[in-house]
Amino acid sequence: MRDYVEIGIGREARRTYDLADISLISNRRTRSSSDVSTQWNIDAYTFDIPVVSHATDALATPDFVIEMGKQGGLGVINAEGLWGRHEDLDGAIAEVCQNPGDLAVLQRLHSAPLNTELLSERISQVRDSGVTVAVRVSPQNAREIAPIVIAAGAELLFIQGTLISAEHVTTGGEPLNLKEFIGTLEVPVIAGGVVDYTTALHLMRTGAAGVIVGGGVNTNAETVGIDVPLATAIADVSAARRDYLDETGGRYVHIMADDDLTSSADMAKAIACGADAVVLGPLLAQAKEAGARGFYWPAVAGHPRFPRGVVEYAGTLDFDLDAIDESGEPTLEVVLYGPSNEPFGQLNLVGGLRRAMAKCGYTDLKSFQKVGLAVR
Amino acid sequence: MRDYVEIGIGREARRTYDLADISLISNRRTRSSSDVSTQWNIDAYTFDIPVVSHATDALATPDFVIEMGKQGGLGVINAEGLWGRHEDLDGAIAEVCQNPGDLAVLQRLHSAPLNTELLSERISQVRDSGVTVAVRVSPQNAREIAPIVIAAGAELLFIQGTLISAEHVTTGGEPLNLKEFIGTLEVPVIAGGVVDYTTALHLMRTGAAGVIVGGGVNTNAETVGIDVPLATAIADVSAARRDYLDETGGRYVHIMADDDLTSSADMAKAIACGADAVVLGPLLAQAKEAGARGFYWPAVAGHPRFPRGVVEYAGTLDFDLDAIDESGEPTLEVVLYGPSNEPFGQLNLVGGLRRAMAKCGYTDLKSFQKVGLAVR
Amino acid sequence: MRDYVEIGIGREARRTYDLADISLISNRRTRSSSDVSTQWNIDAYTFDIPVVSHATDALATPDFVIEMGKQGGLGVINAEGLWGRHEDLDGAIAEVCQNPGDLAVLQRLHSAPLNTELLSERISQVRDSGVTVAVRVSPQNAREIAPIVIAAGAELLFIQGTLISAEHVTTGGEPLNLKEFIGTLEVPVIAGGVVDYTTALHLMRTGAAGVIVGGGVNTNAETVGIDVPLATAIADVSAARRDYLDETGGRYVHIMADDDLTSSADMAKAIACGADAVVLGPLLAQAKEAGARGFYWPAVAGHPRFPRGVVEYAGTLDFDLDAIDESGEPTLEVVLYGPSNEPFGQLNLVGGLRRAMAKCGYTDLKSFQKVGLAVR
Amino acid sequence: MRDYVEIGIGREARRTYDLADISLISNRRTRSSSDVSTQWNIDAYTFDIPVVSHATDALATPDFVIEMGKQGGLGVINAEGLWGRHEDLDGAIAEVCQNPGDLAVLQRLHSAPLNTELLSERISQVRDSGVTVAVRVSPQNAREIAPIVIAAGAELLFIQGTLISAEHVTTGGEPLNLKEFIGTLEVPVIAGGVVDYTTALHLMRTGAAGVIVGGGVNTNAETVGIDVPLATAIADVSAARRDYLDETGGRYVHIMADDDLTSSADMAKAIACGADAVVLGPLLAQAKEAGARGFYWPAVAGHPRFPRGVVEYAGTLDFDLDAIDESGEPTLEVVLYGPSNEPFGQLNLVGGLRRAMAKCGYTDLKSFQKVGLAVR
Repeated sequence: MRDYVEIGIGREARRTYDLADISLISNRRTRSSSDVSTQWNIDAYTFDIPVVSHATDALATPDFVIEMGKQGGLGVINAEGLWGRHEDLDGAIAEVCQNPGDLAVLQRLHSAPLNTELLSERISQVRDSGVTVAVRVSPQNAREIAPIVIAAGAELLFIQGTLISAEHVTTGGEPLNLKEFIGTLEVPVIAGGVVDYTTALHLMRTGAAGVIVGGGVNTNAETVGIDVPLATAIADVSAARRDYLDETGGRYVHIMADDDLTSSADMAKAIACGADAVVLGPLLAQAKEAGARGFYWPAVAGHPRFPRGVVEYAGTLDFDLDAIDESGEPTLEVVLYGPSNEPFGQLNLVGGLRRAMAKCGYTDLKSFQKVGLAVR
Repeated sequence: MRDYVEIGIGREARRTYDLADISLISNRRTRSSSDVSTQWNIDAYTFDIPVVSHATDALATPDFVIEMGKQGGLGVINAEGLWGRHEDLDGAIAEVCQNPGDLAVLQRLHSAPLNTELLSERISQVRDSGVTVAVRVSPQNAREIAPIVIAAGAELLFIQGTLISAEHVTTGGEPLNLKEFIGTLEVPVIAGGVVDYTTALHLMRTGAAGVIVGGGVNTNAETVGIDVPLATAIADVSAARRDYLDETGGRYVHIMADDDLTSSADMAKAIACGADAVVLGPLLAQAKEAGARGFYWPAVAGHPRFPRGVVEYAGTLDFDLDAIDESGEPTLEVVLYGPSNEPFGQLNLVGGLRRAMAKCGYTDLKSFQKVGLAVR
Repeated sequence: MRDYVEIGIGREARRTYDLADISLISNRRTRSSSDVSTQWNIDAYTFDIPVVSHATDALATPDFVIEMGKQGGLGVINAEGLWGRHEDLDGAIAEVCQNPGDLAVLQRLHSAPLNTELLSERISQVRDSGVTVAVRVSPQNAREIAPIVIAAGAELLFIQGTLISAEHVTTGGEPLNLKEFIGTLEVPVIAGGVVDYTTALHLMRTGAAGVIVGGGVNTNAETVGIDVPLATAIADVSAARRDYLDETGGRYVHIMADDDLTSSADMAKAIACGADAVVLGPLLAQAKEAGARGFYWPAVAGHPRFPRGVVEYAGTLDFDLDAIDESGEPTLEVVLYGPSNEPFGQLNLVGGLRRAMAKCGYTDLKSFQKVGLAVR
Repeated sequence: MRDYVEIGIGREARRTYDLADISLISNRRTRSSSDVSTQWNIDAYTFDIPVVSHATDALATPDFVIEMGKQGGLGVINAEGLWGRHEDLDGAIAEVCQNPGDLAVLQRLHSAPLNTELLSERISQVRDSGVTVAVRVSPQNAREIAPIVIAAGAELLFIQGTLISAEHVTTGGEPLNLKEFIGTLEVPVIAGGVVDYTTALHLMRTGAAGVIVGGGVNTNAETVGIDVPLATAIADVSAARRDYLDETGGRYVHIMADDDLTSSADMAKAIACGADAVVLGPLLAQAKEAGARGFYWPAVAGHPRFPRGVVEYAGTLDFDLDAIDESGEPTLEVVLYGPSNEPFGQLNLVGGLRRAMAKCGYTDLKSFQKVGLAVR
C-alpha cells in the first residue's frame, strides 16, 4: 500500500513528503473567513486558536506565556531550561543572544544546577495570571521533575524528547515506563516527539491525551540521519489515531505538529495532514513579548553532548505598521491576528489559517483535516 | 485516472505541474511564422493577439489601455485600484514606486474612498479612444460597482478575486450569486480566478463568457497554502470546458491564463495547456507606456488585511535597440512585436509565440492547444 | 511504452531526460585506455576522434579549422557568419568580444552583405591545407549558397537551423524540399537540428548522411518553449536510425550531438545514448586557436529577430601546465589530448572519453552505445 | 525487479539513490546509547569502531595512523603517495597546502621516484607502535609494491583504484589477475573501489576479505561520466555479498563505504545500506593529528594524467571547547567521541552513530543494516 522505491538490489525505501512538497486544493464552495471557527478543545481545556508555543526559553518567559494564554493559545514552559537555573533569567537569555554562533554558551548555561524552588516560583507566577499552565519535562527527568511542576501549578504536562518511545529498552538502569507513569499523574499528558505509526500507536496506548509529531526531528538529520518529513509523519500518526480510536471505541488523541513551521500556510497544511494544533517556534519569536526578542533556538540546542539546532535571529522582517510601537517589533497579537503588511504569511498567522479554511470551504478544524492535497 | 501519491498512511495527494516543468514537442512539419494567425475572438470582439494585461495600476493608466488596444490586445482597468481614488493618479503611482519594499504605502493609497465619478470619467476617456473597454471589479463589490463601470463604457466585465466560487456560502450577509448577477448584465463577463475542474465547471454554468485561471493563486502559496501550478490548473479547467461544451451542446467558454508568465515561452506553453489567451503582468511592465514605468505589483498587493505579491522592478533589461528612444525603455510595440536583441523571450513576445506555433507545425491558436508536451 | 504523466485531466506529457540526469554504469571487465579506438568514419571520410566543432565564428577561423583537422577532428565553417561579411574577420570578432553583453553588436555585424567571393577565398584557404572541409548553410539559404561553398571546396555540407523539417509547409513562397535538394548535390549532407523520432526519420529519408541532434534546442527554451533534453533526444533519434536501417536494409545515418556539452563526461554520455560523434562549442573555445580566444556564442546568437544564446567567456580555467605557453591558454591539442591538471573534465577531452570507454569495458564507439545507464 | 525508466525510445536507465536522498526510520523501541556496541571484526582483527581513514597523505602521517589505532579505528597508509617519495614529508605536504588551487603541485610531488627503503622505514615506525598496519597499493603496482610493504609490516593490504575489476582485459602487457595474486599473499586483502553487483561478486570470488564501495567514484563524474550514488552502490554490493555467502556456504566479505561521507548521519546511513565499516576522509581532516592540518585531497588527486578531486580546506568549523587546546583544532579523539558544540554531525562522529542505532532500536552494527529507510 505504501509507496516504496528500490534504492538497491533487495533494499527498499519509503517515499516521504514534507509540508513544502504539498499544497491545499480548493474545490468546494468558498466560505467567509468570519464563519470559520478555530476553536480547539483538549481534555477539559478550550483554546480559541490551535496554537502552542515550543517549549524554549527563547520564547517562554513568564510574560510571554501569560500573553499566549490571553491571546487564546497555549504557551509551554521548559522545566529543564533556564527558568530554574538562573535567578537573572533575562541576563542569561541576553548572554545567549550575544553569542548566537556559539552553542557552547547555551550548553554552559544549561549545565547550571536546577533550582526547583526558583522554577516553582516562576511557574506559580504564570498560574496566578489565570491562564492555562503547560510545562515540558524530558523523558529522562520526568519521574523526578513532573511532581514538582504539577505541585507548582502545571495543568498540562508535556513529556517531550526528540524521539520518545512508550517502552525504552535498556540493559541497566530503570527506564521510564510511560503507561505506568502517566497512570500515576492527575494531569493530562502530551508526549512526543514521534514520527511513525507504530511508536505513535504505542504512545497513545500509554494514556497520553496528545502526541507531538516532529519536535526536533529535523534537528537530528545531520547527526543521526533520522529525518521524517512532517507531512508524512503527521499523516502516519493520524492513521494511528484512527486505529486507536477504533480499538478503544472512541478515545481521541490529539496531534500537535512541532517542526519549525515557517508561515501561516504551513499551519494550514499541518492541520490538513491531520494535526489538531500546531506548535510554533521561530514564527512566534518575532513577537516583542518573546523571551529572546527575535532570537530563537529549539530546546535541544542546549544538549550537553548532542546539541541540535542553532541560535538564530528570526525577527528579520521590517515592519511599518501603526499597530507596532516605536520598538519596531510587532506584538504577539499582531503576529497572530494582524494587521499585516507583508505577503509571506509571517504576520496575521491565525488570519491566514482562517482564510485557508474559508477559501477551501471549511468552517472548523476537524473537517478541514479532509481538504484535498496536491504535490509538485 | 489522476496521478496520486500517498504522502502518509491513508492520505493521498495529487501530482501537479507548473509551466516551468513542461516544454513543447516539435514533431510535425514546420511552418512559416508568417502563415501563423494569432487572432482571438471572444463574444463579439476580435483581437489580433491573445494578450490581455493584468488589471493593475502598475500597468493600466488610460494611455496604456488605449495603446494595448491599438496594438491588437486588451488592456484591463482595475475599477477598485487607484483610478477612482486619487485625482493625481501619476502622483499616487509614483509614491508606490518610491517605496517598493513597503506594501503599507500601497495599502494606504487603496484605503482612500472610491470616487465613482472620477473612475467613470477616466473609463470614458478610454472608451472615447475607440478601443475595447474592459474593467475589473471584485466579487465583493461587483453588485455595486459593475453598473457604474458599464454605464461609463465597459464592454467586457472582469469579475476577479484571487479565488472565486459560483456560490459563496456565508451564514450572514448576502453573498453574490454569480449566475443571477450575470443574467442581469448586458455585457459579457470574464470571471475568476479559478484553479480546479469543479469550480470552473460551476463558474461556466453561471453564463460567464470566459474564466481566468490563476490570477493570484501563487501569491496565496505562503499565506494560505493554496498553490495549484498553472499547467495542471489550465489543463483541468480545459477539461471542464470540454464537458461544459458537451453539456450545453456547443457553448464555448474562453480560458485566460493569468499567473505572472515570465517569457514568450510561457505564453506558448499556457496556450498549449488549453488557454485561449494569456494575461500578462511583469512582461508588460517593461513597456514605457506602463503606468509604473517598470515597477509592477498584482492587484491583490494592496489588500488591506492580506496583501499578496510585492512591488518589484520588472524592467531589468538593458536595451540597446534603434527602435527604442532615448528614454532607454522599449515601447509596448517593441515588447510585443520586437525587434529583440535579447535571447530570453522578454521582447518580441508575439513573435516568440508565432515562432513556437510555426516550429511545432500549427497555424492557429485553437489547434495549437493539441501540441505534444514533455516534462523533465 | 513511453513514460507519460498526466499533467492535468486528459492532458499527458512525456518524461524526458538530460545528459546531466544520467550516468554510465561500469559493470564489465575493465580495459586499458590504450586498447580503445575512437575512430569515426562517415561516408568516405575517416576521423581519429568523433569531435566536430560547432559552426560559429567564435571557434572557426581558417587557422582553427585547419588545426581541428590536424588533430584528427572536423572543424565546421559557418557560411552565413562573419567570414563572408567582413574583410577584417579578426577585427569583427574582436568587436563582439568587447561587447559581450550586447547581442545588438553581433546582430549588426551579421547584417552586413554576404560577399561570396570573400567567403570562397577563405574556404579555399582551408581546402589548400589538406584537411577535410565542412561548411554549414542555413535551410533558408541552402539553395543559393550551397553551390558556392561546394565550388569553393566544401566536402561535407551541413544544412543546419535550430529546428529543421524534411518538408517545411508554407502557404506562399517556395520552401526547400530537402530530399530533392540533397539529390542534386555531389557531397554528403549533414542536416539538423532535430529532436524527435518522426522528424529524424523523415530527415533520414531525404538521403542525409548524418543528422544533428540538438544544435540550439536549449537556446529556444525561453523564447518558444521547445526544449527536449539531449539524452532523450539522442535516444529517440537513435531509434529512428534503427528503424531506417531496417527499412532500407542497411543504410546507416550518423548522429551528431550538438548542445553545449560541458565536459568529457558529457561526450561519453552522448555517445552512450546513441551519438556517433559530438559537436563541441564552449569546450573548444578554451583553445588558443579558437577565433574569439575564449569567448563563445552559438551561430543563432546573431539572428536578426530571434537572437538565442549569449556571448560568454568560456575560457575560465586557470592553467599552469608546462604544455601551455606564456599566453596562458592551452592549445587545441592540450584541450583534446591533455596533459590535464584539472579534475572537471575540461581538458584532455579525448582522454576522458577513452577512459570512460575503458572503465566500462568497451574498445570502440559503436559498441559503447550499449553501455548501461543510470538516472538519479 | 529493478526500477528502470525509459530515457528515450528503447533506451532504459536505472534509478539510483545517494545517501543524501535517504534517511533512517525509527519505529522500534528506543535503546540507550550506552547499550550499543560498535565493535567491528574483520579476519583476525577487532576494532572498537567501524572507522577507517582514506589512504591519503592529507590524513595519514605516521602519527595520525598510530592515533587512529589508539582510538579504536584503522588508519590506512598510501604506499604510492608521498611517504616513499620525499624525505621531508611534512615539507611536501606543506607545499601542497600552500597551493590548494593548483593540482600541478600535487602531480609534481607524486612524480618523484618511489624510495622503497624510505617507505618501509616509515611503515616499520607504525608497526613498532603496536597498532594494526594497513597499507594501500594501486592495482597497477600491486605486484611490485605489495611484497615490500608486507615485508615492512603491513597486516592488511588495500588494493585500491578508482574502479577495479577482478579480471582486467588488455591486448598487450600482463594485467593483474587478482585471484591468483591474492592467493600468493599471506595477509588479508581489501579490494576496490567497486560500485556494482557483478564486479563486486567477481571481486569477492578472488578471495578478498573485504571490498571498498565507492572510493573515488564521484571524482569520476565530470571526467568519465561514471557516477553511481553510494546508497544504491552499497545496497547492490550487499546483494552480491548475500549471494556469495550462499554460494560459498558462509564466507562473509566485508563492505567498506568510501565516498567522502560528510557527517555522522552519513556514517549511519552507509551502514544502514549494508556497509560494515566506513572510510572517512574530510571528516577526519578536521583532527589536529591529520597530516595536512585541515586540508584534504583524495589519493587520486595526484594522478599524472587524470587528476580527480581537489585540494580543499576541510577544517572549517570554529571550535570553542575546553577539550580543544590553544591550537584551535580538535583532537582526533574529540572528532570521534566528542564533546561536541556543533549541531551538524561533524564532531562526536561515533557518538552520532551510536545515537542513531539506539534511537532506531539496534545495539549492534550487523542488525542495524536492516533498519527501515525513507527517501524524499
